[in-house]
Amino acid sequence: MMNALQAIMTRRSTRSYKSDALEPEKLQQIIDAGRYAPSGGNNQSCHFIVVQKPEVLAKLAKMVENAFAKMEITPETYSSLKMSIQLSKKGGYVFHYNAPVLIIVANKQNYGNNMADCAVAVENMLIAANSLDLGSCWINQLNWLTEDENILPYLRELGLKDDERVYASLVVGYAKSDLPSREPLPRKGNEVTFV
Amino acid sequence: MMNALQAIMTRRSTRSYKSDALEPEKLQQIIDAGRYAPSGGNNQSCHFIVVQKPEVLAKLAKMVENAFAKMEITPETYSSLKMSIQLSKKGGYVFHYNAPVLIIVANKQNYGNNMADCAVAVENMLIAANSLDLGSCWINQLNWLTEDENILPYLRELGLKDDERVYASLVVGYAKSDLPSREPLPRKGNEVTFV
Repeated sequence: MMNALQAIMTRRSTRSYKSDALEPEKLQQIIDAGRYAPSGGNNQSCHFIVVQKPEVLAKLAKMVENAFAKMEITPETYSSLKMSIQLSKKGGYVFHYNAPVLIIVANKQNYGNNMADCAVAVENMLIAANSLDLGSCWINQLNWLTEDENILPYLRELGLKDDERVYASLVVGYAKSDLPSREPLPRKGNEVTFV
Repeated sequence: MMNALQAIMTRRSTRSYKSDALEPEKLQQIIDAGRYAPSGGNNQSCHFIVVQKPEVLAKLAKMVENAFAKMEITPETYSSLKMSIQLSKKGGYVFHYNAPVLIIVANKQNYGNNMADCAVAVENMLIAANSLDLGSCWINQLNWLTEDENILPYLRELGLKDDERVYASLVVGYAKSDLPSREPLPRKGNEVTFV
């Protein structure tokens, strides 16, 4: 198994997956990695909704496509959201890249650290997946749509509580093609200032 | 060096540090881990301000104490913030736990993924520090005070840009006492729902 720095430096976004299910023990290791992320004041109020049922994934994908297809693009629309809207209007948009597992991370809506806590839980799971030679990708679509009139009630059917909203998600599975070179890509931004 | 899952599962918050400086190569590995975190649309707009000068750390600590000491606690005050306010009113509050290195992560104020991107950069650095047998701790105080009338101008002197604000930070260094048992503590929350 790769060491922590290697797992961090070689993590990539995978957007094409085999249909193979994950071994339950690997999935559990990934979930544990998320559950052991730090939280504000050790609050531990993340709620992990782990979706594997193909019919639920397909229904969510259709709802997400429908929601984006109704949106208008303005000059202020964030680039990734713009792409989701454009692809949904064309049809056939699958936000979860047909990965076999989607892990939705929700948290209390009135809790100040909700976004940070969910984000670090997802990051831990991305690193864990990479260390297990699995592909993974951050998913922002469900937090963009967490208040959607169709998606919110459906997420509640899946277990989301009334006082919770989605702040971050990921998909995970076996990458369809061989993973690209494990050499880290140079960073173009993320400036450092030493004081 | 420990593997990725071990580094994730055994990460702890360290709140007491030796004064020893970090080896520059270890510090660089930690910063690189932060710079290689994912970002929304691969935006890479985090700005890492790495503070090691003792006089700057001391000045920041005093400013933070002064800012908290002026705040009032209400029934709605978040528990960790409440503790910072109480300790500051008593005097002698040092938000960075006398660690030799403080890494402030800022991002564009008008960018929707600013909090998530800074949070995952900090998480990568916490995991990297743990894998290098260093202590570390998440620091929320500077994002709580990022609009403070004294702290914001001082952060700008240190390199923060006009359109940036602080969203997450960490401290890192050698833990003063031997680290506690490396066995992960059981989680009390962070519920999981399988679908």
